[in-house]
Amino acid sequence: MNKKYVYAFTEGDGRDKRLLGGKGANLCEMTQIGLNVPPGFVITTEACLEYLEKKTIPDGILDEVRDHIGRLEEKTGKRFGGEDNPLLVSVRSGSAMSMPGMMDTILNLGLNRKTLRGLIRQTANERFGYDAFRRFIQLFGKIALGVSDALFDEAFEDVKRAAGVKADIALSAEHLKEISERFLKIVQDATGRPFPEDTFEQLEIAIKAVFGSWMGKRAVDYRREFHITPDMANGTAVNVVTMVFGNMGNDCATGVGFTRNPATGENEMFGEYLVNAQGEDVVAGIRTPKPVHEMKQEMPELYSQLVDLRDKLEGHYREVQDYEYTIEKSVLYCLQTRNGKMNATAMVRTSVEMYDEGLIGKAQALLRVNPSHLEQLLHPCLDPSHMEKPIAQGLPASPGAASGRCVFDADQAEIQGRAGEKVILVREETKPEDIHGFFAAQGVLTSRGGKTSHAAVVARGMGKACVAGAEGIRVDSRARLARVGEVTLREGDVITIDGSTGNVYLGEIPTIAPKFSDELKTLLSWADEAARLKVLANADTPESAAVAMEHGAMGIGLCRTERMFNASERLPLVVEMILAHDTEERQAALDKLLPIQREDFKQLLKIVAPRPVTIRLLDPPMHEFLPSENQLLDEIESLKEYRLAVKGRSTALSALNAPYAANDLSEDLVNSVIAKKEQMLRKVRELHEVNPMLGHRGVRLGITYPEIYEMQIRAILEATAQCLKEGVPVNPEIMVPQVITAQELKHVKASVDKIRREIETEFGLELAFKFGSMVETVRACTRAQDLARIAEFFSFGTNDLTQATFSFSREDAENKFLPLYTEYGILQDNPFEVLDIKGVGALMQMTVEWGRKTNPQLEVGICGEQGGHPTSIRFCHSIGLDYVSCSPHRVPIARLAAAHAQLLENR
Amino acid sequence: MNKKYVYAFTEGDGRDKRLLGGKGANLCEMTQIGLNVPPGFVITTEACLEYLEKKTIPDGILDEVRDHIGRLEEKTGKRFGGEDNPLLVSVRSGSAMSMPGMMDTILNLGLNRKTLRGLIRQTANERFGYDAFRRFIQLFGKIALGVSDALFDEAFEDVKRAAGVKADIALSAEHLKEISERFLKIVQDATGRPFPEDTFEQLEIAIKAVFGSWMGKRAVDYRREFHITPDMANGTAVNVVTMVFGNMGNDCATGVGFTRNPATGENEMFGEYLVNAQGEDVVAGIRTPKPVHEMKQEMPELYSQLVDLRDKLEGHYREVQDYEYTIEKSVLYCLQTRNGKMNATAMVRTSVEMYDEGLIGKAQALLRVNPSHLEQLLHPCLDPSHMEKPIAQGLPASPGAASGRCVFDADQAEIQGRAGEKVILVREETKPEDIHGFFAAQGVLTSRGGKTSHAAVVARGMGKACVAGAEGIRVDSRARLARVGEVTLREGDVITIDGSTGNVYLGEIPTIAPKFSDELKTLLSWADEAARLKVLANADTPESAAVAMEHGAMGIGLCRTERMFNASERLPLVVEMILAHDTEERQAALDKLLPIQREDFKQLLKIVAPRPVTIRLLDPPMHEFLPSENQLLDEIESLKEYRLAVKGRSTALSALNAPYAANDLSEDLVNSVIAKKEQMLRKVRELHEVNPMLGHRGVRLGITYPEIYEMQIRAILEATAQCLKEGVPVNPEIMVPQVITAQELKHVKASVDKIRREIETEFGLELAFKFGSMVETVRACTRAQDLARIAEFFSFGTNDLTQATFSFSREDAENKFLPLYTEYGILQDNPFEVLDIKGVGALMQMTVEWGRKTNPQLEVGICGEQGGHPTSIRFCHSIGLDYVSCSPHRVPIARLAAAHAQLLENR
Repeated sequence: MNKKYVYAFTEGDGRDKRLLGGKGANLCEMTQIGLNVPPGFVITTEACLEYLEKKTIPDGILDEVRDHIGRLEEKTGKRFGGEDNPLLVSVRSGSAMSMPGMMDTILNLGLNRKTLRGLIRQTANERFGYDAFRRFIQLFGKIALGVSDALFDEAFEDVKRAAGVKADIALSAEHLKEISERFLKIVQDATGRPFPEDTFEQLEIAIKAVFGSWMGKRAVDYRREFHITPDMANGTAVNVVTMVFGNMGNDCATGVGFTRNPATGENEMFGEYLVNAQGEDVVAGIRTPKPVHEMKQEMPELYSQLVDLRDKLEGHYREVQDYEYTIEKSVLYCLQTRNGKMNATAMVRTSVEMYDEGLIGKAQALLRVNPSHLEQLLHPCLDPSHMEKPIAQGLPASPGAASGRCVFDADQAEIQGRAGEKVILVREETKPEDIHGFFAAQGVLTSRGGKTSHAAVVARGMGKACVAGAEGIRVDSRARLARVGEVTLREGDVITIDGSTGNVYLGEIPTIAPKFSDELKTLLSWADEAARLKVLANADTPESAAVAMEHGAMGIGLCRTERMFNASERLPLVVEMILAHDTEERQAALDKLLPIQREDFKQLLKIVAPRPVTIRLLDPPMHEFLPSENQLLDEIESLKEYRLAVKGRSTALSALNAPYAANDLSEDLVNSVIAKKEQMLRKVRELHEVNPMLGHRGVRLGITYPEIYEMQIRAILEATAQCLKEGVPVNPEIMVPQVITAQELKHVKASVDKIRREIETEFGLELAFKFGSMVETVRACTRAQDLARIAEFFSFGTNDLTQATFSFSREDAENKFLPLYTEYGILQDNPFEVLDIKGVGALMQMTVEWGRKTNPQLEVGICGEQGGHPTSIRFCHSIGLDYVSCSPHRVPIARLAAAHAQLLENR
Repeated sequence: MNKKYVYAFTEGDGRDKRLLGGKGANLCEMTQIGLNVPPGFVITTEACLEYLEKKTIPDGILDEVRDHIGRLEEKTGKRFGGEDNPLLVSVRSGSAMSMPGMMDTILNLGLNRKTLRGLIRQTANERFGYDAFRRFIQLFGKIALGVSDALFDEAFEDVKRAAGVKADIALSAEHLKEISERFLKIVQDATGRPFPEDTFEQLEIAIKAVFGSWMGKRAVDYRREFHITPDMANGTAVNVVTMVFGNMGNDCATGVGFTRNPATGENEMFGEYLVNAQGEDVVAGIRTPKPVHEMKQEMPELYSQLVDLRDKLEGHYREVQDYEYTIEKSVLYCLQTRNGKMNATAMVRTSVEMYDEGLIGKAQALLRVNPSHLEQLLHPCLDPSHMEKPIAQGLPASPGAASGRCVFDADQAEIQGRAGEKVILVREETKPEDIHGFFAAQGVLTSRGGKTSHAAVVARGMGKACVAGAEGIRVDSRARLARVGEVTLREGDVITIDGSTGNVYLGEIPTIAPKFSDELKTLLSWADEAARLKVLANADTPESAAVAMEHGAMGIGLCRTERMFNASERLPLVVEMILAHDTEERQAALDKLLPIQREDFKQLLKIVAPRPVTIRLLDPPMHEFLPSENQLLDEIESLKEYRLAVKGRSTALSALNAPYAANDLSEDLVNSVIAKKEQMLRKVRELHEVNPMLGHRGVRLGITYPEIYEMQIRAILEATAQCLKEGVPVNPEIMVPQVITAQELKHVKASVDKIRREIETEFGLELAFKFGSMVETVRACTRAQDLARIAEFFSFGTNDLTQATFSFSREDAENKFLPLYTEYGILQDNPFEVLDIKGVGALMQMTVEWGRKTNPQLEVGICGEQGGHPTSIRFCHSIGLDYVSCSPHRVPIARLAAAHAQLLENR
């Protein structure tokens, strides 16, 4: 068999990365689409494998190489080893998988004392010549001959020191010549042989070094680390490319460019260049490159060649390209091109414009934008040019950046917020009664709690920045200050928090505001056309529902009614309900809550109409609405001290027989407050639970205190009836949380049916709404067939379901062992952020299958936090879910991810 | 089609309960096996259905009835409606399903003024005659004619009042005659017709009444309540039986008997009889019946007939029978027989003896004993004759009864226990540091906590009685007393607790000690032969392991190493380990624990050898070994007060310039104790978890603090090596708790392999042991295929798995909503007591299937508490588990249940 081991760039198949390596295939492709690539050839990966097996390069291969060098000489008019017009080449490795930094490139191969003279003569630049020579000796010595790099560096520094020179650039041609000589000696001493003068010998040694590097320790480790198996990449190719020089005179230049502006996406020439310079000069930063549009004046002919190049690149790759070029004696060479990295704004704009230009289709326009990158467009972010160091770090609990004055309680936040101040609420942790502080603040910073702490969840719901669990900060609310190491933050001090990274900074750092551009709207409308999965939002308030609608949500997939309970004017009523001694007292409190809840629902339903609003009946355990035991104990103690003081004063006054024997401080009032607090304390203790996550909550509350669910059901259905009367076509869905058996659903359904009949009679109309179940306990999964007989829809609550599947309490896990679990690779991801497909996902898939067995019309969605995560969305699509519901600010991301899921399935 | 509607007892098929009803079929069977049953016949359920459809009894049926009455006359020589020797009959209903108390029996049908005279003449007892008559009129009036019972009762009381008589028995024949007359008038007034004199008319009316009762409200409600569907029972039969009288003279008698002694199981005549009496006389308690062996003297001929009867009954039914008989004029009639209800002792003994006698096979001997009933034989129980009322009730947390003096802390329990007192430890709740109190006490009573509270779990493990969560009791440990309503229990007061019912009594109530008889041993050895499932025990101490072995455990399926940590002399070392500031300090504490744990394991392994001991690595979160936050705060406060007092005193003393300026109370010492407690408090706060059940525990500890697991693994393997050196063939198995992914197992397995190699080298031997995984998280179930590649065995921890599946925290659920859930029928059983087959069971089945796919040799067992429950055991058998492991005291129950599972499968 006469195998071919060497391909000229004009021959190789640009798609055969396995044979030619990624870089080699790319050079072939570039050449064949008509770009002026410096001529060269690729020695295949098969040659590498044969070398590794036989420990020598078969003669046939070397013959082919010689043949191709001959072709290069022919094409360039230069000669390999020739003095007059010497051919120099670069030699580099390149396997099918990119393994960055594995092996340096050998430049200027083909230089020796003889060809060096030719080079100097050609460029009339002795310094350039010796500089090229000393670089070649060092690279070749190190890479191909294995000489220690340190020896070269020492000699180099020696000469610099002796010359009294600081910067390399200050070295003269003489110095560089001396360095070259010393380098040659280093090689001879280290290898016991003189530096090879024969250029073919140089080439053969270099090729062997590249081949051998494939089994070197660094490469083997790298492949193991990144799980690169032989079927993905086997052996490395060798790329031999003619050297071109941008520094041979003023008709030479070097530059880099993007086919479009990577910051804005604008369709314009973009890039920089330097006349009479090498690429490394740009990197060294000694000369400032010029913007590309200046070339139009300076080198108009070349500029128009560059415009051609750009058109060819986009026309062929149909993607924005990041390219490098060199102009040698007025000839433009394209050295490299790859897909351009851009920010989200640019990605979105180029997608829409490239579609409009007919360059790409809608599918490609959607697929080239990474959904997660849209995050950048939806929250303010820190100006990336800032140089501040954070003073503390916590968990990135709710994305976005915000600056403001520190305040240490919610009331202060409200007062200052109303006064127009920007404030950051800083607390050890937050509680439901702090909710008005959230509304007033720019962002929230806590020193305790994880990504599902109250602060985190509420902030995400509102789309406000939040850094949680910044344990380095010690908050002292009473003293109205916080300490971070040496720094003390006092009320009024300005800080900046970055909820996307968890960083906390002193002072104000400029932020960049989010943009919801027309291009983004266009792109997302295409996403909606492409996707099968619907995207709904989790929203509890009219405000967040409005944001969700703006962001294109197709309805509300989860409205948590307890958030409504937490609003500061309602909490007292809720507490009254909880403290009730009997059903009658409880009913009285509920009667007061009913009109408020009804009004909540009316507002929400109208904003979202005619799209659906899924309302979850009360879920959290009752004690969550009460202060903590410790807080109450503190309060009672303070009150008792106060009472003692009052008593002491009045005793003192009466001893004085003072006529003004003060009743300005009423002991009775204090007593009654103490009594109230003590009652609350008893209740808190009665309601105490060992594991509240697994406690008396959800439908269990609905069954033990049916009057609570009845009030909520009535509020929902009365709101619906009133809206319908007003002609607004609202669509509520009632959802029951924490279900474990169909019996519970039957129980609640009976209330729903009874109340529905009453309201239909009262209003003289028919109510249409859906009744469904959360699936957030494992038992609900195993009983899906039964539940689906009663429920019209399922909604996976993957936060709780993940906790139950792993037996991980999220708050405890994220603070204690989860970081180590991901560090050790025991878990790939935090399952509370990325849906655990192997465990939770397996249960979900089973649930969907079993549920649809008894109810083929069953609608299934997900309303856990993972519902907004692209890989989770792709999984949800794959198991046949109907919708995902996520926080309003993630809706655009989810819409795009839903489209990706469908498009990738079609492939 | 000429359908037959009436069957004589000599004709009917004893197996056809559907046609003849249960009672009718039974009477036919008894007759046909040669028992002298009073002659009679059954009118079929089909006749009933036809009557209900046509609202009238078809003539054909009535003709058949007449024919059968004729046959009765022939057989008895009596005449229906005849004066000389009148035939009287009883009429009763009887459907295929027993519906107790649905309808009374009509006795003495066939009486009228004329036949009454004959009866009186025959018996020469006018009082007897009128008594029979008035009873007949009332029963017939009420049942067949629908006359209000109250009318009869009023008239009866009138006559008694007028006669100045208190007891019915004091009424004379004249009084009863008057009553009969008034009853006849009541019937006439109520129905508008005279009481039917015609006996056939009486019979027809009675039959219609029985038929009609099938669709009466009472019967319909009953069938709905107990889910009796038409395919189970449709229509009622009518049983017409000749009346026989045991009160016609001294050659008459009535009696009841068991074929064997139902209290002891002894194979002897057992029962009581009364000469010249009716069955109801025994019930009325006016005359004391004689033990049956007296009949041997009094009526030798009849006694030998009775012995024959007994032999026939057992020979036919092959089960102990509970039978009733009447002797009329020296003729023995058997009226009824059914399987005898016996206590557990008797059931076990009769099983073994009936097998020895060849009456039954081993399978039947096993199956007739209900495994749960063995409970009676394994714990002391209250003398059932006691009449005390409980003063409080809690949860039946650990079975058995115990009396003793109240003590309110573990130290007192130990002191008094050592002094030979019987004590009951009474606490609000118990903690690990109370463990020495458990050893010393007879039983434990707590006012808080559920069936998995510390008290309950530890008591069950030790086989001590425990009543937990008796919320009516308010314990004040400081004051050393407890209040229950009006009662105050002080230290030293004697109480009795019944851990099988949850009752608490004042004073001592006699108990019956448990017996582990030879018969039980024999029966259980048969069970082991029959069963496929092995039965292991959960045991943590040498003592409980010894009990387990005595009870026939085939190994230890769960040894919880944390129990060993809790022993009072070790707890300080454990605390030292927890408070360690770094790995080095922790290692130092662990080094002290190592020899202790090794000794523990050696003892345990030797006791159980050569059977396996499955040792679970540390499971509970660390904070469980520390005091609670509140306790520490209290202690610190007390210490600070004490310090203040000390200071005050020394200041006072120095002010007095006293020469003895006391250093008897060292402030430094107090300070150092305070510092230690404060350190502990910080640690407690640091370790605090929101949901400890789902927290930092099990293998998560093993991964974050690898040195703890390494110490335990080393202790196990060193103990093994030492035992092997001593020639004891021990068999440890190492089990990892709370696993969610195979990665965790790999992590621990690496430690095991490393330590194994070290010890094998050191001891110069090969260690053989198994390595396995608890399956107690849902994710472990979903990843069974993966886990089984590393684990040699799985052990279901169904306590935790149930909590995770339901998202129920057991402690919270049992105290808060679970009682209502079972009351409402939302759940059939408490899933923590009876394995939830539909949810948890579904996961288990999946796990076994998936696990054996990758590892067909995988051994699978269960070590949750449900592992000792018979229905759970049957399920475990059905899904192919290899073993169940339960508390030592439930081992016998489990062995029998395992046999049942196999035998019932074979059927």
